[in-house]
Amino acid sequence: MRDFLPDDVRRREHVIGIITRVYERYGFEPLETPAVENLETLTGKYGDEGNKLIFKILKRGEHEKSGEADLALRYDLTVPLARVMAQHHAKLPRLFKRYQIQPVWRADRPARGRFREFYQCDVDSLGSTSPVVEAELCAAVADAMTELGFSQFLIRLNHRQLLTAVLDVCGIPAGKHAGVLVTLDKLDKIGWEGVSDDLAKQDITAAALAGLKSVGDRPTVTLDEIAALFAKAGSIPPAVDNLREIVGLAGHTSAGTRIVFDRFLARGLSYYTGAIMEVNVPDLAGSLGGGGRYDNLIGMFSGQDIPACGFSLGLERILVVMDERQMFPPSVGGRYADVMVTIWNEASKTDALALASELRKAGLRVDVYPEADKLGKQFKHAASRHVPLVTVVGDDERAAATVTIKDLRSGRQDAIPRTEAGTHIRQALERAP
Amino acid sequence: MRDFLPDDVRRREHVIGIITRVYERYGFEPLETPAVENLETLTGKYGDEGNKLIFKILKRGEHEKSGEADLALRYDLTVPLARVMAQHHAKLPRLFKRYQIQPVWRADRPARGRFREFYQCDVDSLGSTSPVVEAELCAAVADAMTELGFSQFLIRLNHRQLLTAVLDVCGIPAGKHAGVLVTLDKLDKIGWEGVSDDLAKQDITAAALAGLKSVGDRPTVTLDEIAALFAKAGSIPPAVDNLREIVGLAGHTSAGTRIVFDRFLARGLSYYTGAIMEVNVPDLAGSLGGGGRYDNLIGMFSGQDIPACGFSLGLERILVVMDERQMFPPSVGGRYADVMVTIWNEASKTDALALASELRKAGLRVDVYPEADKLGKQFKHAASRHVPLVTVVGDDERAAATVTIKDLRSGRQDAIPRTEAGTHIRQALERAP
Repeated sequence: MRDFLPDDVRRREHVIGIITRVYERYGFEPLETPAVENLETLTGKYGDEGNKLIFKILKRGEHEKSGEADLALRYDLTVPLARVMAQHHAKLPRLFKRYQIQPVWRADRPARGRFREFYQCDVDSLGSTSPVVEAELCAAVADAMTELGFSQFLIRLNHRQLLTAVLDVCGIPAGKHAGVLVTLDKLDKIGWEGVSDDLAKQDITAAALAGLKSVGDRPTVTLDEIAALFAKAGSIPPAVDNLREIVGLAGHTSAGTRIVFDRFLARGLSYYTGAIMEVNVPDLAGSLGGGGRYDNLIGMFSGQDIPACGFSLGLERILVVMDERQMFPPSVGGRYADVMVTIWNEASKTDALALASELRKAGLRVDVYPEADKLGKQFKHAASRHVPLVTVVGDDERAAATVTIKDLRSGRQDAIPRTEAGTHIRQALERAP
Repeated sequence: MRDFLPDDVRRREHVIGIITRVYERYGFEPLETPAVENLETLTGKYGDEGNKLIFKILKRGEHEKSGEADLALRYDLTVPLARVMAQHHAKLPRLFKRYQIQPVWRADRPARGRFREFYQCDVDSLGSTSPVVEAELCAAVADAMTELGFSQFLIRLNHRQLLTAVLDVCGIPAGKHAGVLVTLDKLDKIGWEGVSDDLAKQDITAAALAGLKSVGDRPTVTLDEIAALFAKAGSIPPAVDNLREIVGLAGHTSAGTRIVFDRFLARGLSYYTGAIMEVNVPDLAGSLGGGGRYDNLIGMFSGQDIPACGFSLGLERILVVMDERQMFPPSVGGRYADVMVTIWNEASKTDALALASELRKAGLRVDVYPEADKLGKQFKHAASRHVPLVTVVGDDERAAATVTIKDLRSGRQDAIPRTEAGTHIRQALERAP
């Protein structure tokens, strides 16, 4: 887990700010949940592997000695959302669209770009099974990616029930689906040869492998081609129509040129029931985010099924890519103050604070050097922190009711009537350095 | 611990936004630390009571069975800051001013306005012992309070070493100072009679009690009066001059009319070494925040003492008071979208998404009803969520390339050329409802 020093925080806030504005433009509302959930809320929702990665909190007080845990750190933002929908049902609308940008914790072995505390940027639409929901989610994600500065990205789309139908039609028994999907998910990395070896170990027949190849030999196989294959085999699964509708609807949004059907996209989480999505950028293994429809999860908490679909962007991965590709505008992580007020001598401390107060009232961000140090040392501190301007009020300036404003970028100095200092500083800031 | 539904989040963001803007105007920089710290970083820093309130995290994997904890949830923002200063020393300037607004966790029994997860808004200035630091902190807090809408508040000021000197001069042995300060802190609630009873139980002599009374009989006793008392007893402690200088400097800032000397203000935390402050509003027991100088804490981590002074505002208490006193502007927690696009029938879903996309490009916050429901039901959903306007594109509008825009506040309907819809909606939003 990491500390975020000022420039790190500014980069994070830049990304979070853009994502927030886009999601609000789509009518999503903010939700926040506590970092700590009851342990029983989380167990059993993330599979065996997930269970092991949950940070568990020891009971307090006299129960501490038992060594037992009753609470746990939030593992994702979807299960807490499901709990909220059950718990606050009466206060929430039937159609509820929420975004949530908060940290989650997983006791994973840390690796490059993988941390034990990381932020998810989730956006979910609850209460409707309409494909308008999927189309709007893809459009919102496309807008967010574009406004972050990604010019090339794709939103890959598939459907859990189509995957099941594909495996069925290839004659793969339901009990072996999970393992086969894990293998197919690696196709890009290991090729058909690797897939073939892997499937042989899982006792998948050569006929089934041939069937899979006929479905997905080319990465660009289209929905129409898949539909044709199914038509030959008997009937087209409803998932094909659902995907067609999503693609058709999204075609009239900002996601239009971004959506591509990917016949073997699987997504790890077990709770998905319908369309699944993933967003990718060129030259990056893995995704920047993903999501899908999960119509049964909320029912696990409320007893009443509420259809739902969501998308989660990974803040840390986005930051790593934006950093490597120098996608941050220069204004992010720039100076922390517009001007620094220096202190001439012990007797002028009070006047320095009064000047700072005047400049702040003029809307400027003002730092005050706290001590009556050598002026050169004060200038050096400001310059090292990229503060472009400093003020000096010595005995002469004091007598003449002026302020000397020094531009540390150019060395230029101007003595300005004190009442005009704010305006002068604003102009100096607008000047090219 | 609580969930924050959309209106809660908006109120919180309103307060956090104001505090952030003010702190940045004073040249403070953002810092964030992980929710989880090593347990040993936290133990021993908050006293025996504090130790018991730390949430401890169970070891993972094979060590889980041991029932032992190695990590813990952040208990405040000051100890993590001290750790950061030691750990990232080379990357940080000698004079470092940071703000940090993050949750902390304490296993306290929950009560009204007291939660086990709560946010602190901390602002700290590191690297200087100058009283300019205290004056700037008080000014920043005063500006934050004013911009939040508090018109009446006071910043109470005292000094740890002055308290010590007062107890010394009254003949109270050092070993009994802590207990006596706890009692004096309750003076407002229990009066001198209660204090007298309490001190008798601590074996404090009648002479000592009389001494305390002579120092602090009136709540408005001034620094000059305290100084005079000490002058009589021999020498004036340096803390008096330090407080005089802080008051003098702050007098030329926005904290000028807010600062009052309070002879028995003690503040709980043991790490304070100099000036201590607390901010209070009328008719509220307890404070909205407090702070002080702690010149030795960072040395516990870095081995090298770095002077420091900080102030912490409690977000939850501020929110409770602002809520009770109706201090939120109407714009906070208003509508989540400017306009909702309705869906006329199944065939017009695509066009609805296209219209939403056009309106979003015009900078509007746009929700789309996801289904081709009865129009009345769609209107009702928008109205119940305070969305003021809805669009309708039926067959007539489609043929004429218009959009009907209905103002749900007044019932007014206008058929507008589709290309002008964005402009019309902007104007309608500006109209008084």
